[in-house]
Order: sequence, then C-alpha cells, then structure tokens
Amino acid sequence: MSKAQSKVVTSPAPSVRDMANAIRALAMDAVQAANSGHPGMPMGMADVATVLFTEALKFDPAVPSWANRDRFVLSAGHGSMLLYALLHLTGYPGMTIDELKNFRQFGSKTAGHPEYGHAPGIETTTGPLGQGLANAVGIALSERLLAARVGNDLIDYHTYVIAGDGCLMEGISQEAISLAGHLKLGKLIVLWDDNSISIDGATSLSVSDNEIERFTASGWNTARVDGYDPTAIAAAIKAAKANTSRPWLIACKTVIGYGAPNKAGKSSAHGEPLGAEEIKATRERLDWPYQPFDVPDHILSAWRAVGSRGTKVYADWAKRLSTANAEAKALIGGRKIETAVAAAIAEAKTAFAADTAKRATRVWSQLTLERLVPALPELIGGSADLTGSNGTKTKHHASVTPENFAGNYVHYGVREHGMAAAMNGIALSNSFIPYGGTFLVFTDYCRPSIRLSALMQQRVIYVMTHDSIGLGEDGPTHQPVEHLSALRAIPNVYVFRPADGIETAECWELAIAAKRTPSILALSRQAVPNLRSDGSENRSAKGAYLIKSPEGKRDVTLLATGSEVGVAVEAAAELAKSGISAAVVSMPSFELFRAQPESYQNDILGEAPRIAIEAGVAQSWYEWLRKSDKFVGMSGFGASAPAGKLFEHFGITAVHVADIARQAVAS
Amino acid sequence: MSKAQSKVVTSPAPSVRDMANAIRALAMDAVQAANSGHPGMPMGMADVATVLFTEALKFDPAVPSWANRDRFVLSAGHGSMLLYALLHLTGYPGMTIDELKNFRQFGSKTAGHPEYGHAPGIETTTGPLGQGLANAVGIALSERLLAARVGNDLIDYHTYVIAGDGCLMEGISQEAISLAGHLKLGKLIVLWDDNSISIDGATSLSVSDNEIERFTASGWNTARVDGYDPTAIAAAIKAAKANTSRPWLIACKTVIGYGAPNKAGKSSAHGEPLGAEEIKATRERLDWPYQPFDVPDHILSAWRAVGSRGTKVYADWAKRLSTANAEAKALIGGRKIETAVAAAIAEAKTAFAADTAKRATRVWSQLTLERLVPALPELIGGSADLTGSNGTKTKHHASVTPENFAGNYVHYGVREHGMAAAMNGIALSNSFIPYGGTFLVFTDYCRPSIRLSALMQQRVIYVMTHDSIGLGEDGPTHQPVEHLSALRAIPNVYVFRPADGIETAECWELAIAAKRTPSILALSRQAVPNLRSDGSENRSAKGAYLIKSPEGKRDVTLLATGSEVGVAVEAAAELAKSGISAAVVSMPSFELFRAQPESYQNDILGEAPRIAIEAGVAQSWYEWLRKSDKFVGMSGFGASAPAGKLFEHFGITAVHVADIARQAVAS
Repeated sequence: MSKAQSKVVTSPAPSVRDMANAIRALAMDAVQAANSGHPGMPMGMADVATVLFTEALKFDPAVPSWANRDRFVLSAGHGSMLLYALLHLTGYPGMTIDELKNFRQFGSKTAGHPEYGHAPGIETTTGPLGQGLANAVGIALSERLLAARVGNDLIDYHTYVIAGDGCLMEGISQEAISLAGHLKLGKLIVLWDDNSISIDGATSLSVSDNEIERFTASGWNTARVDGYDPTAIAAAIKAAKANTSRPWLIACKTVIGYGAPNKAGKSSAHGEPLGAEEIKATRERLDWPYQPFDVPDHILSAWRAVGSRGTKVYADWAKRLSTANAEAKALIGGRKIETAVAAAIAEAKTAFAADTAKRATRVWSQLTLERLVPALPELIGGSADLTGSNGTKTKHHASVTPENFAGNYVHYGVREHGMAAAMNGIALSNSFIPYGGTFLVFTDYCRPSIRLSALMQQRVIYVMTHDSIGLGEDGPTHQPVEHLSALRAIPNVYVFRPADGIETAECWELAIAAKRTPSILALSRQAVPNLRSDGSENRSAKGAYLIKSPEGKRDVTLLATGSEVGVAVEAAAELAKSGISAAVVSMPSFELFRAQPESYQNDILGEAPRIAIEAGVAQSWYEWLRKSDKFVGMSGFGASAPAGKLFEHFGITAVHVADIARQAVAS
Repeated sequence: MSKAQSKVVTSPAPSVRDMANAIRALAMDAVQAANSGHPGMPMGMADVATVLFTEALKFDPAVPSWANRDRFVLSAGHGSMLLYALLHLTGYPGMTIDELKNFRQFGSKTAGHPEYGHAPGIETTTGPLGQGLANAVGIALSERLLAARVGNDLIDYHTYVIAGDGCLMEGISQEAISLAGHLKLGKLIVLWDDNSISIDGATSLSVSDNEIERFTASGWNTARVDGYDPTAIAAAIKAAKANTSRPWLIACKTVIGYGAPNKAGKSSAHGEPLGAEEIKATRERLDWPYQPFDVPDHILSAWRAVGSRGTKVYADWAKRLSTANAEAKALIGGRKIETAVAAAIAEAKTAFAADTAKRATRVWSQLTLERLVPALPELIGGSADLTGSNGTKTKHHASVTPENFAGNYVHYGVREHGMAAAMNGIALSNSFIPYGGTFLVFTDYCRPSIRLSALMQQRVIYVMTHDSIGLGEDGPTHQPVEHLSALRAIPNVYVFRPADGIETAECWELAIAAKRTPSILALSRQAVPNLRSDGSENRSAKGAYLIKSPEGKRDVTLLATGSEVGVAVEAAAELAKSGISAAVVSMPSFELFRAQPESYQNDILGEAPRIAIEAGVAQSWYEWLRKSDKFVGMSGFGASAPAGKLFEHFGITAVHVADIARQAVAS
C-alpha cells in the first residue's frame, strides 16, 4: 500500500464542517490569546465562508493583487479572525500561524479590525459598520467600469461581502444598497450574517426590519439559506452568480458563536474571549481534539488545495492579458499619468493666466476639469446631486448608467456618505481616480468615509464647494464654519483651499499626484479675483507662499486661504496707501506647508505682526500665530443673507483687515 | 342686504386650490424678491399642506409652544417658504408679510432654511436633508414618553413631516424609519413629496427604490395619493390618524413647481427664482390675478379662520391641565431641576472622594448616572448598541419598548446618526433631557446632528466613551485621534473630558445645567486614578484649573485633559524628584476656560514653559501654547495593540512627559 493510498484511508476529504471548524478554532484561540476580540461572528459564519472560498471565490494567494480576482469584503470587520484564518488557511504569503498568535498585538498583520495594507488579501479597512458594504459598491462598480473599457474577457469578477446586523442598521447601508440596486451591480453578492444578536442583546431590542423586503425594494435579488447547510449555501451562491441582473442579498441564518455550548446565540459571544472553560467545551462539542492554533495536516492540506486552485486560473488570465492591447494593459496595471496631468494643468494655467474674469473657484475647478478629464480616462467624476453647483461635470463626461458603464460620471444621488465610501472602493481598484462633489458643510455627512480614505491612504478627491458664509442665503445650516479646521485635524488629508484660477489648477495637480493621501478641494461659491498670472511653477506645492511680496521692509503679514486671499490682497493695497508694507501669504494647504523646512516657514511667516484671515473658525490657525497676532474670521455660526452682507457683518473685509493691521503695526 | 350677506355672495368659501395658490404665490414672489431660494417644493406641495393645515393639524398660533400641539416638521427645509407662508396665513405672531418680503435677508425671521428659534411655529431647524424626518422620530417618541407619564388626556398629538426625495435618499432616513417602525410610533405621519425630481434632474438618474415597499419593510403603514386631490389627501390623513398601530408614509404624487407653465416638473424649478416672465405666466395659469405678496381678503380670512380654530381646542386643554396633578404639570412645563441635580451630584462626589479605586471615567459616568437618573425623571438615556461599554444604563432604567413608553432607556440600535437626530427631537420637547452613548470615534457618524444640536441650542448630552488610543486592541478604526479637536471646532458645543470620578460628576452637572448648549462627554475606556477628593466646589466649571499646585515657584506647567491628567500628575511627581516644581492644569473644557477672564487664564497657564498632554492631535491645543511650548500626543492614527503598549509607543507616558519637561526647563 503506497503512502498516498494510506492517506486516503486515514484522511478522507474533510467536510465543509471540518474545514469550517478550523476557522472556528483559530478564531476562538486567537481571541483567547489576545484576551480581546470577537469570536462570535467568525464562529457563526465559518461554514458560509468555507463554502464561499471553496466553491466560488476566484483568487490566487500567490498573486493577491490580481486585477481580476474576486473581492471578498468583510464588512463586519470585528470578525477579523474570520478573514485572517481564511488567509492563513488558503496560504496567503506572510499570514503565518505566528501572525494569528499575535492577533491584536503591536506590529502584527492581524490588527483588531482588518487594516488595508497590513497583509495581502485584506481588500479594504473595515470595522466602522456599514463601510465595507458601501466600499464594495465602489469595488463592484469599478469592475463594471473597467470591464466596459478592457472587455469582460479580462475583467469579470464578483464582489462578495459579509455584512452583519450592525452594517445593515447603519444608514450608510441604505445609501449603498440603493445605489447598487439603481446601477444594477449584479456581480455584487452580500452574505448577511443573520444571527439576530447585537451587542445590547437580541436585535429585537432595536430593529424589526424585514431585510429581504428592504433589499427587494431597492432592486436586489434575494435568497435565504441555513448558514449550516453547505449544499444550500453553495446553491444560493451559484444561483446568484448565474443571474447578474441585480445585486444579491443572501440572508444566512446563523448562530453567533456557533459551537460554544454555553455562549452560542448570546451577545456574550460577540466581543470578548470565550474563556478557557468554554473553549474546552467548544472543542468537545465540535469534535475538534487539536491543540490551540493546531490545524491538522489533512485539513490544512485541503485548505491549501483551495488556495492553489487559483494558480491555473490566474495563469490563463495572465496569458490573455499578455495579448491585450496596450491601453487595456495600462488601465489594468495603472497608467503613468504624470505627463498627461502636467500638460493638462499647464494648458489650464496658461488659459487662466490670460483670463481676467472674476470667477468662483468652483468654476475654475470645472475649467480645470475640462482639461483634465480628456487627458485622464482614469478620472471617474460624480456628485451627490449637486452637479451644477459643484462644477464636477464637464463636456467630456458621460453618465454611468446600468446600460452604460463606459460612462465616467456617477450621479451618486443625495448620498454623500455612500458616495465617499464608494469612492474608497473605486480608488482601491487601482485603475481609477475617483472624485466627487457636495457642499463643504456636508463633509459632515461623509466624514467616516473621508477618515477611511486617509487611514487606507487612498487617492480620493473630494470636491467640496460653497466653502464658507460666501454661500449666502441658504444660511447657517449650509455654511461651513468649523469644517476647514475639522478636516485639517484628520491625519493624512490634504485640505486645499485655492485662492484663484491658477491655484485651483495647482491644487488639482497636487491632489492627483498624492497617491497615498486623499484631498479635499474647498472651493468658493462666490466669484473671486484672479490673483496670479505666473504659471510655470506650482507654487501651491509648498503649502504657503508669498502671493504678494512686501514693498521694502515687511510691516505686517496677512495670511489667508481661498476667497479671503483676495480680501488680503485688497487690504494690502489699502495699507500701502497709509505707507504700510504688507506681505500677503496664500496658504492653500497647511499640511504641505507644515512639511517644509523651518527656514522656509520662517521666511514666509516673517517676524512682522501677522493677521490671519479665513471665513471659518480660528482653531487650525493658532499653529501659525503668536499670542500677539490676530485672526479675522468666524467665531460662531453664519446667517442667512446675501454673501456680501455676511462678509460685511462678520468683518471679513479688506477695510476691516486693514484696520486690524494698522492697529497691529501701531502697537 | 347686510355687509355680511354681501360678502357671502361675492366671496364663497375659497377652495383648497385657492388657498394653496396663496402659498404658491407667496413662495414664488418671496424667492423672486430674494433672487434666491426654492420655489418648486412649496408650489408642488401647496395643496397637501393646505389640506393638512385645514383638515388635520391641531395648533393655535396664539400659543405656539402649546405642549399638546401637533408638530409640523418641514424636513425638506429648502422649501422654507411653504412653512413661512403657512405661518403667515394662519396668523402666527410676528410672521408678517414684511417678513416674507424679507425672505433670506439679514436679520429676518425668514432664513433660507427654517431656523429653530427664529419664529414661533418653526419646530426644528431643517435643510441638511433627512434631519427633519429623524428629528420627528424623536418628537413622536417624546409624545409617547410624555403621554405615558401624564396621560393621553393631556398629551396626545401627531407629528407630521413633509419629506422630499433627498430626505429619503440620505442614509439617516433609514435609521429614522427603522427606529420609528420598531417603536411603532403610530402618530408619526410622513407626507412624501414624490415629485421625481432632484437637483441633477429626474430622480431616475440616481434612485430606483420602491419607497412604499421600503417603508413597509420597516413596519410602516403606507398610502398613495394624488397631491392635487384634496379629498384623497384628507381621506389618507384621516385614515392614518385613525390607525395608530404603526407610523405612516403617505406618498403624495406631485409636480415640482406646480403651476409654472414652463418650469413645472423640471429641476429648474427647484432651487432658483422662476423669473419675472414665468411668474407672470404662472399667475395666469393659476388664475391668481393679485399683485406680488397680495393675498386677497377672502382667502386670507379663510386661512386666519383655520388658525383661530385652535383657540377653543387649546382652551379646553388648558382647562384639563389646570386640574392635573403637580407632577404632570411640572413635566409638561419643564421642572425646576437645579436642586435635585445638585443633591445627586453632591452625593456622587462625596462617594467618589472616598473611593480610591482606579476606574475608567466611563465607569465614573455610570456611577454618576446611578445617582442622577432616579433624581431626574426627565433624563432619557440610550446608546447606539454599546450600552455596556458606554455605561449609559443604570439599575434605575427600564427599556422603552412599543409596549412600555414609561421606560426611560432607548436601545437606539447601531444608528448613531438616527440616535443623535432623535435626541434633538426629544430635547425640542422641552420635557426631557436626552443623553446617548457610542464610541467617541463614531461622533463622525452623527456629526451633522451634533451640529444641529449646537445650532438649535439644544441640551443634548453625548456620552462618548473609548476616547483615545486607550481603547487599545480594536485599533485605529476605533481610536479617535482628531475627534477632540474636530468637536471643539464646532461653535456652541461643550467638549468635556473629565480626568477622574469627581470631574466626571462635575462635567455631568455642567452638561445638565447647559440649557442652550449640547455637551460631549469624552470618557476613557481604561481605568484612571482618582485624583481629587475635594468635592464641594465645581472646579470644572471654569474649564481649567490647577489640579496640582506647584511646590513653590513654578518651573513648568503641565496641561492635560481626561486620562492624561493622571499622566501629568505622575510626571509632576517624577519631576519633583529632580527638584523641578511642576503645576498640573486639568482642562476639562476649553470652551468654559475660554469664557474666563484673561487674568484667570493667565494665572492658570502661568509664565513657565508649558507642556500639553492629550492622546489626540495637537490642533486645538495651539490656542493655549506659545511657540516654545511643547505638545505630547498623537500626530497620526493609532494602532491595534493593548492600550499600555500604545501609550508607551506613542510616548504618552509620565516618563516621556518628564523628559520633555526637563528639556523645556533646561532650555
């Protein structure tokens, strides 16, 4: 009897249950070792995940960035051990058993929640509930966009999501499913961990929605399965794959902490270690007689076989890619865009330098886009139903519709949060650069997703217009005052507030060049004077610069951003009449200025008294001001009135700035 | 023939259409006069609103704060002229025709969007879409809560909402309708302005939801009506009032800009003046031959008669109230609570002063609530599914359920945004003080509603725990770093970050005393030492104070908040060993400190070198620091690891602070 034959006798192909138990055991062991984490979800969904990975998911652990892989998004990110166990079992590089033993420890790949970039196979950062589901809409949309450009032969993947009750309770989920249903993203398949338990107890404490009906109402196909019936799960996924007319919800009835004799089905299984006793009892109940973190060979082999099944599929695809045209290859791999961007921006700046009209920076932004969009097929524009106001659509755009994924403009609807999360998903595709617009005040509606753009280091460009009381009559609900400071507080975000046409083009250039940092473009509603005509150097790149040098010795420095730079320039002219020499510093990006050498910062800021001017609150300005310096801006909410009246009322005028400057110089 | 008879002959009772046309005309005239605004929605919904006000709404313009009035919430706040027109026509005090002529002008009552407090009859501030609908859930919930306490005889009102497509696209709407459906808020009636138009164009550009099915899935009753069939509208509202088993959606099929010959049904009617020509044509089409802002007597009289119909209803109610028990009267009118609060806080502080245990400030908060809740029946607690973690529920709480509105604790579900908006609605009741918990990082999810708490000056208390990297293993997605600064940037918000038990009790006292300001209580996950045993004075009330005075001359000042005050105190002890005399300043509220006289601020901050310590970003601290001062905190996102390890890694330790202080003193 050969060894192989002997193996067949002693180790029959493990069942789905056996393979799922490996996930369960790893999850409960890792959480126990960390003395922290969420065992309940991985244990409850282990069978569903096993069927998904063994029967459906197209992936190759050796090529985790394969453009045509199926995406697996764990929206219920607290169940991170489910993902880490799967990555380990299927053989993703680096996801060793030691990483699992180091779950939630400093420097491990196995953070408390899945962190994009920590390890191959983590498709997106999840944990804040609903975000993964909403990212997945962007990922699934990217698939359609890319397929429309390079053909289904090269791009044809599914996006699978595991979402929990919490994901579905978050409002962002509605924006996501509504958008996905509208766009008929039929290759998006959501597996809902329907376990009827949330942290406070039974979900019946707080929710009575019929999710099947809810998704149906948004144009989804739906199915229900027993989360422990592998045949039914496989059949449901197969049926979903076969019918791509609409996105799919598969409700999987599960038991949280499945297998734990005393905690299964209870909220106590959700977010804390099961404890040594319960783990022992669970091992017995599951008939899993192995030591902690020990996966027996026959089960590990079966899992690894699942992982290596993708080798050939990938190789076949790579062969197809090798015969594809250059444009398709470039789009899939990520084009080199620097030259095209530079040319488009140069063209814009030349045109703007010759244009003496007063225009809103949102209009300058649109005029910049008129040049950028044809040069960059990667750009996917959009707006949360403020297209005309945001100036996000150009004559080179076609709307994305279920019938036309060759389009390059998304009508996101009145869904700022869903838009931002979808843009994160689009950026993760590595093939597209998403930008989307709304009013600056509504960054509040999408802030959790902006934060994830920053944390995931994704190039998402937020075109945020109507950036101050300059919005006027709509009043304080629509006038940002705290938002510039509040956005500047987020790590790894560029908050650009350009002053005129040239700066707007420069900030667009910087935003596109920032491959690992999202950008906010804060743009005015109201017209501003064009201040610069020099074009070749990107002066905004240093974050702040002298837009008007003092005449001779500097008596006072006026610091401003955006629409208030024009106010400062006017104030400087006013001061010149009194023989006061004012420097005007435009500061389109605090972040880039902060990154300059101190000597440059000192040169720009100077020793003279400083007056900072911005139609927002002072908070983020104190970094650049000394105790004796002054701030001209807002200290409370705005009001409803024509913009000019408001600037007058709140004292954000050249006359008032000049007065303050005179006092500062005199004192 | 008497004059009265003559009137009957020449002026028959005006039709709903005639009365609605008064709204239409005022809306288009006011928008035209302002050269800004949204005529389309008021013109489209004028008939529905007319039927609501004439047939159903219980109100008395002479007593706009009547506790048992029906509430009318214009969630589609851009249609503010609908509300202003109704308030004017029905005779609300102060809403003169001149106010309408001053629409959107500085200082008028008629702001671009309805602003709570600007005029009687404006029930809540709306404009940011979805907020009104979600406020209304809190308002309708308040009705049930109050009725359960004082009886249906005294409190029995309906809450009516007009919501637009935008409201329903926002994710917050799902949280709101899901919560309302779960709680079976059967006296909430939403009239959906189903006009199929949004700003970008037809709603079919971005949304395909079946709203009737969607609401049904969340446990609502639904109906559809033609928005220009008064009989059908009246019948639908009547049916809805008769069946209070579930909340109601009445989908009203309308035409945006109804009556405007060339713009009706188009997005061009949404957000800009119709223009003189189109207004002229509309007057003809509507057979409305009157001058701008001119409402003919017979129509105005009919409207005023609708307004005065409430006089008797109110009088009857007032009579019933006069015979009610003192407790009911007090709850309805708003109890004087100062004494009860002072006693509960004093009791807590006495107990805490004697308690030497290390506890998390979230635990101190819970222990404070154990005293406050029985003393304050007005307190309505809750959490977005983090009850145990937030410490928001005490032994004095009973859960609010559809069967028990006598409860005082709301399981809001995983719906931070819906919770915050509902709390705004509860606060607007004037009978309750709402507080609700989630993790501090998730203030991002509810920021638009926090902003409205501030703008509306509502006493909403946000119990935001896990307030730093001290959260530990859950990692950067759950660790706030920018949030303290970002929240401090919002005008009219108190951001309290107490250091220990006594301060936590003091901050609760201040939050409850802040009748016109919402509060954030930022509380630690991890245990902190109890630092104070003095109890009688509320030292937190000045925002910052010396929690540890220097021994002799002050060499250095350590400024800190929350869990880092303990670090500072420990560092001071360390420094004392080197003969360095450190003052430690606890700064639980920047806002209250900013309000102190400069002399007090200078005394506290001192002239010695300052080291600020907070496990967040520096931004909001620069206000208190000079260029030579130092900040010890975060400059980027956190990481997943045990909390102790993280504080070590990021250098937020007594040892590191002492090092920095030594360098500062030496230099």
